[in-house]
Amino acid sequence: MDYDAPAFFDLMAYARNADHDVIDMVSGDPDWGSPEGIAEGLHEYADLGGAAFQYPPTEGLIELREELAARHGVDVDRIVVTVGGGEANYLAMALGLERAPGDEALLVDPVYPYYPGTVKMLGGTVRYVPAERDGRLDPAAVRERVTDETAMLVVNTPNNPTGAVYGEGTMRDLVALAEERNLLLVSDEVYDRFDFSGRFTSALAFESENAVVVRSFSKSFAVTGFRVGYGVFPNAELADAARDRHMLTATAGVRPSQYAVLHALRTTEQAYHDRCRRTLAGRVESFTAALDDAGAEYMPPDGAFYVMARFDGFPGTMENVKRLIDEAGVAGMPGGAFGDSRDDWFRFALVTPRAEEAADRLAAFV
Amino acid sequence: MDYDAPAFFDLMAYARNADHDVIDMVSGDPDWGSPEGIAEGLHEYADLGGAAFQYPPTEGLIELREELAARHGVDVDRIVVTVGGGEANYLAMALGLERAPGDEALLVDPVYPYYPGTVKMLGGTVRYVPAERDGRLDPAAVRERVTDETAMLVVNTPNNPTGAVYGEGTMRDLVALAEERNLLLVSDEVYDRFDFSGRFTSALAFESENAVVVRSFSKSFAVTGFRVGYGVFPNAELADAARDRHMLTATAGVRPSQYAVLHALRTTEQAYHDRCRRTLAGRVESFTAALDDAGAEYMPPDGAFYVMARFDGFPGTMENVKRLIDEAGVAGMPGGAFGDSRDDWFRFALVTPRAEEAADRLAAFV
Repeated sequence: MDYDAPAFFDLMAYARNADHDVIDMVSGDPDWGSPEGIAEGLHEYADLGGAAFQYPPTEGLIELREELAARHGVDVDRIVVTVGGGEANYLAMALGLERAPGDEALLVDPVYPYYPGTVKMLGGTVRYVPAERDGRLDPAAVRERVTDETAMLVVNTPNNPTGAVYGEGTMRDLVALAEERNLLLVSDEVYDRFDFSGRFTSALAFESENAVVVRSFSKSFAVTGFRVGYGVFPNAELADAARDRHMLTATAGVRPSQYAVLHALRTTEQAYHDRCRRTLAGRVESFTAALDDAGAEYMPPDGAFYVMARFDGFPGTMENVKRLIDEAGVAGMPGGAFGDSRDDWFRFALVTPRAEEAADRLAAFV
Repeated sequence: MDYDAPAFFDLMAYARNADHDVIDMVSGDPDWGSPEGIAEGLHEYADLGGAAFQYPPTEGLIELREELAARHGVDVDRIVVTVGGGEANYLAMALGLERAPGDEALLVDPVYPYYPGTVKMLGGTVRYVPAERDGRLDPAAVRERVTDETAMLVVNTPNNPTGAVYGEGTMRDLVALAEERNLLLVSDEVYDRFDFSGRFTSALAFESENAVVVRSFSKSFAVTGFRVGYGVFPNAELADAARDRHMLTATAGVRPSQYAVLHALRTTEQAYHDRCRRTLAGRVESFTAALDDAGAEYMPPDGAFYVMARFDGFPGTMENVKRLIDEAGVAGMPGGAFGDSRDDWFRFALVTPRAEEAADRLAAFV
């Protein structure tokens, strides 16, 4: 496997080891707290012991799968609970490469770096379709890039790192293209709760035999360390194939976490999600206002919790990222970590209440 | 992937759906309870919230890795905490196939069925070396089966399903063979706490650059649902390669579970393990005594918690396993699930206090 660990391990260590105050905008770790149901559920679970501490069904706790099936309006046998959204993406990509004669995965640049890493790990080859400058994806551009070797198309909406949210028309066209060319569309929707635009449309809306949808509780309940995500597969056959691979990879999912997430699903009110989204929208506003003052170019995010920004004469190289840590006290990510098209940009994660202060620091520095 | 889900999903459902009392000896779920430190640790963790609920380091919580490194007397950078021993096996096997020119994995028959499934999933081919009739492994027999295509050798000691414990001489010879032919020896030692013979020897004893050792808390703390295991790799380079694949498969391990296991590691006395082992040794004794009364042939286990048994004129086929459920009220596994060499045997898991009663039922039936 020729995949290098993403640069952010080094960067996080570099920022942590600085001997001055650094505002961390590197990680994707929510800082706004989990709903109460998570801790409640975990306490409840801890007291069960015995048989409740043993393997859950490989495909996940049935109560959790039923709850999810009801929410999505799909048959329960289409749902496999995984070790976070990351494992669901891995399983879906493996299926995508297995079911097709070709070995090519079409990814969008800028790209979440785990996608090309996973494709290569699975023996596939990567082909990129460029996003528009504002992060939108033009289905016609995707269509142009499809070849006879293309086995699947992986998209992420709301998008990390661009913040783009693909609208209904885009998603409809992508699903139609997947059906026409018999590709697997893997739609990674782990930021579904963080849509500021109101335009988010799940691939599930089109009831396609060619779409897998990936969801996760990591971001929506602020529990990235719990490892509970799931895939909604087009049919029971593909779900069973995903379950078999899941079994050979991890034996089963994580029972304490699944129990806690189920409790939180049943007890968390919409107000929690509204509050988190408002917090983030406020950070986007104040951060981008300060970027305006700094004369930066940026992509105003419609969703997720990242902002890509560009400063004239100060490209987002690894060297400059370290200068920002050392001299401005702000840690971001170099754009090159997300593909070739944005290597003069920086990515900042809005996972700190000090986002505005960070932008002021950036403005003062550049 | 052409791997079929192990027969025990169907069997467990069949046994559960019976309308009479069935003693479950199918699963590998310990029934003797976890040490108190598990629930304590989980309660403690549930109250932390916030940043403590987010991604642990990809390679595992540093405090846990340090504790394990100290116990094994190895450098901490050789340890990667995984999603149970199952994921550690998957990672080690992937490395074994990657580092060698050949694509062949040498497995021992009888075999734990996840091994051939994982090898095939990874694109490798499987070659078997037969165990002795009593479950022991003759290193000379292994040597005979090694070809230029052999990339790795996977062993399990104490062994599921045979109960064999490989002694020091066997392990030394296997390690020497791995070094001589530059194979990767994957030594799955998840039943290390269940050695009745006192002969258990870890591959770690030989400080080899060609051995990966897999351990887990699933059995030793009776928490199969928590998903915490680890690999001890020969060097930091292989550990980093395992970590990268782990990252692309699961993003990270399970923080609540790692926290609870660390707490239990620090607080659990040897007496807990002694008590569990004595309980099992007692079950082995009463179960095998009843098998003697039934005139069955069996392999007296030196470790782990399974007994393979054979009844003249009543082979361990799937059909007969179902008859045992229906007519004797005892659920076991067909020997054919563990390879070709034992397809007239049954495997019974001693995960119930009713093991002796089960053996009496078997004796009455056959």
